[in-house]
Amino acid sequence: MTHFPRLTLASGPVDVSAETLRAMQKPVVYHYDPVFLEIFAHTTELMAKVFQTEYDIVLLQAEAIAGLEAAAASVIEPGTKVLNLVSGVFGKGFESWIEAYGGETIEIAVPYNQAIDPEDVRRAFQLDPSISVVSVVHSETPSGTINPIKEIGRIAHEHGAITIVDTVSGLLSEDLSPEEWGMDIAVAGPQKCLSGVPGMSLIAVSPAAWERMESLNKPLRGSFLSLLDWKSSWVDNRRFPYTPSVSDVYALESVLQQTLDEGVANIVARHQVSARATRAAVRALRLEIWAANDAIATACCTAVKVPEGIDDATLRGHMRSRYGVMISGGYGSIAGKLFRLGHMGLSAHPTSVIAQIGILERSLLDLGLNVQAGAGVAAALAEFSDWDDATYTYA
Amino acid sequence: MTHFPRLTLASGPVDVSAETLRAMQKPVVYHYDPVFLEIFAHTTELMAKVFQTEYDIVLLQAEAIAGLEAAAASVIEPGTKVLNLVSGVFGKGFESWIEAYGGETIEIAVPYNQAIDPEDVRRAFQLDPSISVVSVVHSETPSGTINPIKEIGRIAHEHGAITIVDTVSGLLSEDLSPEEWGMDIAVAGPQKCLSGVPGMSLIAVSPAAWERMESLNKPLRGSFLSLLDWKSSWVDNRRFPYTPSVSDVYALESVLQQTLDEGVANIVARHQVSARATRAAVRALRLEIWAANDAIATACCTAVKVPEGIDDATLRGHMRSRYGVMISGGYGSIAGKLFRLGHMGLSAHPTSVIAQIGILERSLLDLGLNVQAGAGVAAALAEFSDWDDATYTYA
Amino acid sequence: MTHFPRLTLASGPVDVSAETLRAMQKPVVYHYDPVFLEIFAHTTELMAKVFQTEYDIVLLQAEAIAGLEAAAASVIEPGTKVLNLVSGVFGKGFESWIEAYGGETIEIAVPYNQAIDPEDVRRAFQLDPSISVVSVVHSETPSGTINPIKEIGRIAHEHGAITIVDTVSGLLSEDLSPEEWGMDIAVAGPQKCLSGVPGMSLIAVSPAAWERMESLNKPLRGSFLSLLDWKSSWVDNRRFPYTPSVSDVYALESVLQQTLDEGVANIVARHQVSARATRAAVRALRLEIWAANDAIATACCTAVKVPEGIDDATLRGHMRSRYGVMISGGYGSIAGKLFRLGHMGLSAHPTSVIAQIGILERSLLDLGLNVQAGAGVAAALAEFSDWDDATYTYA
Amino acid sequence: MTHFPRLTLASGPVDVSAETLRAMQKPVVYHYDPVFLEIFAHTTELMAKVFQTEYDIVLLQAEAIAGLEAAAASVIEPGTKVLNLVSGVFGKGFESWIEAYGGETIEIAVPYNQAIDPEDVRRAFQLDPSISVVSVVHSETPSGTINPIKEIGRIAHEHGAITIVDTVSGLLSEDLSPEEWGMDIAVAGPQKCLSGVPGMSLIAVSPAAWERMESLNKPLRGSFLSLLDWKSSWVDNRRFPYTPSVSDVYALESVLQQTLDEGVANIVARHQVSARATRAAVRALRLEIWAANDAIATACCTAVKVPEGIDDATLRGHMRSRYGVMISGGYGSIAGKLFRLGHMGLSAHPTSVIAQIGILERSLLDLGLNVQAGAGVAAALAEFSDWDDATYTYA
Repeated sequence: MTHFPRLTLASGPVDVSAETLRAMQKPVVYHYDPVFLEIFAHTTELMAKVFQTEYDIVLLQAEAIAGLEAAAASVIEPGTKVLNLVSGVFGKGFESWIEAYGGETIEIAVPYNQAIDPEDVRRAFQLDPSISVVSVVHSETPSGTINPIKEIGRIAHEHGAITIVDTVSGLLSEDLSPEEWGMDIAVAGPQKCLSGVPGMSLIAVSPAAWERMESLNKPLRGSFLSLLDWKSSWVDNRRFPYTPSVSDVYALESVLQQTLDEGVANIVARHQVSARATRAAVRALRLEIWAANDAIATACCTAVKVPEGIDDATLRGHMRSRYGVMISGGYGSIAGKLFRLGHMGLSAHPTSVIAQIGILERSLLDLGLNVQAGAGVAAALAEFSDWDDATYTYA
Repeated sequence: MTHFPRLTLASGPVDVSAETLRAMQKPVVYHYDPVFLEIFAHTTELMAKVFQTEYDIVLLQAEAIAGLEAAAASVIEPGTKVLNLVSGVFGKGFESWIEAYGGETIEIAVPYNQAIDPEDVRRAFQLDPSISVVSVVHSETPSGTINPIKEIGRIAHEHGAITIVDTVSGLLSEDLSPEEWGMDIAVAGPQKCLSGVPGMSLIAVSPAAWERMESLNKPLRGSFLSLLDWKSSWVDNRRFPYTPSVSDVYALESVLQQTLDEGVANIVARHQVSARATRAAVRALRLEIWAANDAIATACCTAVKVPEGIDDATLRGHMRSRYGVMISGGYGSIAGKLFRLGHMGLSAHPTSVIAQIGILERSLLDLGLNVQAGAGVAAALAEFSDWDDATYTYA
Repeated sequence: MTHFPRLTLASGPVDVSAETLRAMQKPVVYHYDPVFLEIFAHTTELMAKVFQTEYDIVLLQAEAIAGLEAAAASVIEPGTKVLNLVSGVFGKGFESWIEAYGGETIEIAVPYNQAIDPEDVRRAFQLDPSISVVSVVHSETPSGTINPIKEIGRIAHEHGAITIVDTVSGLLSEDLSPEEWGMDIAVAGPQKCLSGVPGMSLIAVSPAAWERMESLNKPLRGSFLSLLDWKSSWVDNRRFPYTPSVSDVYALESVLQQTLDEGVANIVARHQVSARATRAAVRALRLEIWAANDAIATACCTAVKVPEGIDDATLRGHMRSRYGVMISGGYGSIAGKLFRLGHMGLSAHPTSVIAQIGILERSLLDLGLNVQAGAGVAAALAEFSDWDDATYTYA
Repeated sequence: MTHFPRLTLASGPVDVSAETLRAMQKPVVYHYDPVFLEIFAHTTELMAKVFQTEYDIVLLQAEAIAGLEAAAASVIEPGTKVLNLVSGVFGKGFESWIEAYGGETIEIAVPYNQAIDPEDVRRAFQLDPSISVVSVVHSETPSGTINPIKEIGRIAHEHGAITIVDTVSGLLSEDLSPEEWGMDIAVAGPQKCLSGVPGMSLIAVSPAAWERMESLNKPLRGSFLSLLDWKSSWVDNRRFPYTPSVSDVYALESVLQQTLDEGVANIVARHQVSARATRAAVRALRLEIWAANDAIATACCTAVKVPEGIDDATLRGHMRSRYGVMISGGYGSIAGKLFRLGHMGLSAHPTSVIAQIGILERSLLDLGLNVQAGAGVAAALAEFSDWDDATYTYA
């Protein structure tokens, strides 16, 4: 029998806090029990605070891919021109929904180690002012890069388009606000920087987005993928369109409260320091960062080019089977080209970063690479000189 | 602040066992961690055993309404003739998906306290042999009635149609097998008779159903609602189409193991005795059962007509706020006309049934009804004379 | 394999709340970790509030028998005259410690279904004014009776003696305060009316008791049984004499907080109503209460004489094996003469009382007794007419 | 509010596995419930297997200091000559019990960084053949040293004496067996190398020890500290002398099962490699090991001399408050002279060792010491070249 890992440092789902597990232990109750109605309402309020938004919140059951398809299904109709920005696997993946729901795709694509240039977005609108929806991935987890959402959002709004932003791993990697960043439908997930339990789509919806949904020729209603169903049931009437995942909501409420207790800005800072320390370690070990430059490297994980002489799956398998450390590899078209060091959620902390780098060093040596043991850890430690748990507080 | 109920006797979600809660406490891991791949595969195998089937199993994230819509979306295309059997709120609700995915609805409807007559199904096929899909609800939880699925399934198969069966609360209410009962796409939920945690759709898919999905003009792929995506990813290749709900899967694995440890037939028997005892108690209190006759009363909950002189919401609110006992009311078009006593999952046991009847008696007295205290309990006790926990075993 | 019971209605340990179990899930930490020092101090403060005392609190590891022996060992020396009041098994048991630590026992004893008469205590002091310690059991759990501690304490103090009071199941059965009731060393346990986890002795110590301990010829120090060790370590210096039971302390902190949230007086009332309802049910079933009269029946459990024609062990075994309901029997010299219905802690609630009486009725019928099914439940329901969970609140 | 530590690397209590926490979540039941009787019996059997003994097992409530005093109280009577071997704080501490129970102490003492020489024990018996009890600490946790118990036990037995061995942190530091090592009363604790929950004394008792207890002039009975009470109740009759700590027993059963699943020899090896790696790291950082030589360094923690220029409490406080890493300091007469790195139980693993050394390096730098960052980690990694989790398996 396989045993549980010692350290889950994958790029989501990530390890959750003991407090979150305890929250999930609350008794399962009927979803219309008064106690659950209060908890669900409270969770919604906490979510708005973590999103730093006054937009409506939809807590959709099922992981963020459901939320993203729901966004597509709710705002795209035959003929809708959608500007799809592609800087990675997930960006490219959105195209299939545009097609499925009858939209027309206009694509801007860059290599998967680079970021979208907002000026290209501006040019796209100049070429075709009838674009009404822009879809973009904030943090491309598979390749560890980040897009300038704030600038892109502003340009979209200048041209009267609404945005669908996949910020599944972006939320808490950067200090964002849907209003200020021009995110009309922002979709996050609990299992990334929030260190929550997978199984929910966390969505903020702007008034403009609601308006667009209602103004379609045939607004989407009566479907699991309908955001409008949530508006007419929970948002407006405190009813549920279907049975919510009671235990997952308990976990989410706890995760959001823990997030606010620590503070959004503190968590973002914790991710960013951990990312800097990890990149420093990678370079000290003479490995190469995947992202074209540090400015576009996401704070939630660090993609590293697979060095000559070893195989990605072998390295990750070795770390997992010999030392119990689980990290993620590449995905889709970039599988085998990179591996990802994790510092997402709770693991954005010196103890996890150091353990991970140490085990990476040990594993590279085991596999015959000529690395200097301790060099990566030393470089990481240098970046942690200002760390103070009094600021970064956990339950 | 509202407090948690003492007893959740609603018609789903229901209370879960301590062992199930513990299972959910396993550390959250990466979904491609070897330990999770083993657990997911094991859970799938256990599910097949509980379904008593050799059909493929799909464990879709999100509660059964997602699984039911996925079934509709996967087999209905423009022009598909669907025979929709309506004996309750959920049966009627299926129609909207038939319409949404372009099908043509042929309806057989009966009053919501009665069951579909298989002969009417046979006549429908005689009238229109081009019907290719039959949709039917096995156990209509909102009104506490049950349909003769086995006979309906046989007739559908005789006429070359496939069936979509909502057995969300039917699984473990009756001793069923998809193969023998002619269920091509059987959709169950963990939060009913399984006493599990809500948030999953548990689906058995027959070869005929897969064949139909693949033979559509435009098979549904690349969607959260696509069952074919699960076939090409998990069923055929042990990959996931998206991140599964790790903790919910832990809970489900445990629930299924507990189910097999007790034995499917024993659990069904436990539900049926509890239902008989509850109906006896209801009659001893001179209240009226909603179902037209006992043969079509479901074993998972007992719908009772709201007696003259009290209001359904008042009664349920009183039981919850004064005694901490949560039961369910009616739903949709039958709201206010009935309330439902629960004996679903773990609560199909004399201790729960007796406590529930006792509190019902106390509450009816509190609200001024002239009932004989103890009469309901006495009638229920008479039905439990053969009960033996050695047969009905729990974790 | 034997299965867990459906309902634990024994006379301690009793069932604990879901919130208490969750509290025990906190990570185990080093006992000098700052977080644990805070928790232990907080738990001590909460304990004082539940005891309604300003006396020092000692939270001794190990169940109350350790605390009671520690009290004896700490205040008795060769020659100490101890008035031991015996109205049950535990009262008699204290004598062995008096002997072991060199004291001289002066006994007042009554039959085990009666209570000590305070006037007899007064007379004992008149006969021998050199009595310096009085030992007495507040609530004799094995026989379900209670002693008039308040009057006894006052008389002891009038004569310059200190008291050792076993209030293991007395705390929350009655609304007490060590100062007002003259309890110098009051020993309670978490696993009775507090609905906590067994494994701790909860002790309030008066200044007079500390003074006596220090004034012995050879004060007890350096022993697991030394209360003075706790004074010089935790009480005075926030150090531990040995490693405390970290998880048990987490559970206790939670239990005490839940107790204060509900309110001591409310919990006492809840026990007393449940006891009244249970006695009414017993009489309606033509069974006999063990206690000589209701005024001395404890509120935490109801001892019932075993009726002619059945065997105590058979009855309890039947209830446990057939219906999963665990109750307690007699103990020591009264074993086989009585069985005890439980309404201790969380189970002091109509749902538990009704379920218990119903299963008792069913079981008596199964065993061939001629009881009227429903009669006990009806009598209990009559006593619950004023019940309101809004007053009696649980986590 | 203080927050929970990131890593508990103290010298007990230590972190426990997720599986152990889950086990503690089982419902609290009556101690004479059939399910608990089975669990307690099973736990006793598992304990014997972990102790690798056929001696009787006593699972005393309360941490090991209770078990050790119980051993002293049970075998020492006025006049008993006890050879007390002192190589550390706990060894010295035993003397107070010898005195308290009327024995006569004959002491062999060595400096607290050294071990007892078995030849000195032989000489003591030659000087005074009437010695009937030898008391010795196997692993002196406060100073990180170990005594040659096996040789000492053999010599004691040659001279007809029985031994009381404090192996609280020795069990699983070395691969021992009471029979082969001459341990008559071996007292261990769950909260050290077993990674269990504190609150129990785990005791193996030889026939010779039982015989001695029964042959005293006044055998100890009727006391919380009586081992004979456990013999006549649980060992011989499957009754309890008092209410056991139900939840702690659940935790212990799980811990013992996990221990056997991994294998005693594997766990010992895991501790020894971790200790070697830690000592190598300490030396690479130019710090000094407390133990006089590696042969007598315990495998469960590594005591390090506090280097010039920093204060022990400051260092530990800094590691805890800045980085959330909790380690232990000295104790009693050696407080302030050493600090202890932990590798006890679950933390005997490269991930914990590396994180701990890294944070130690960072902290020493923060406090102005001139250490080479990464040097300690590099030295530790070198020792882990043969590590394989497939051998060292965890739940």
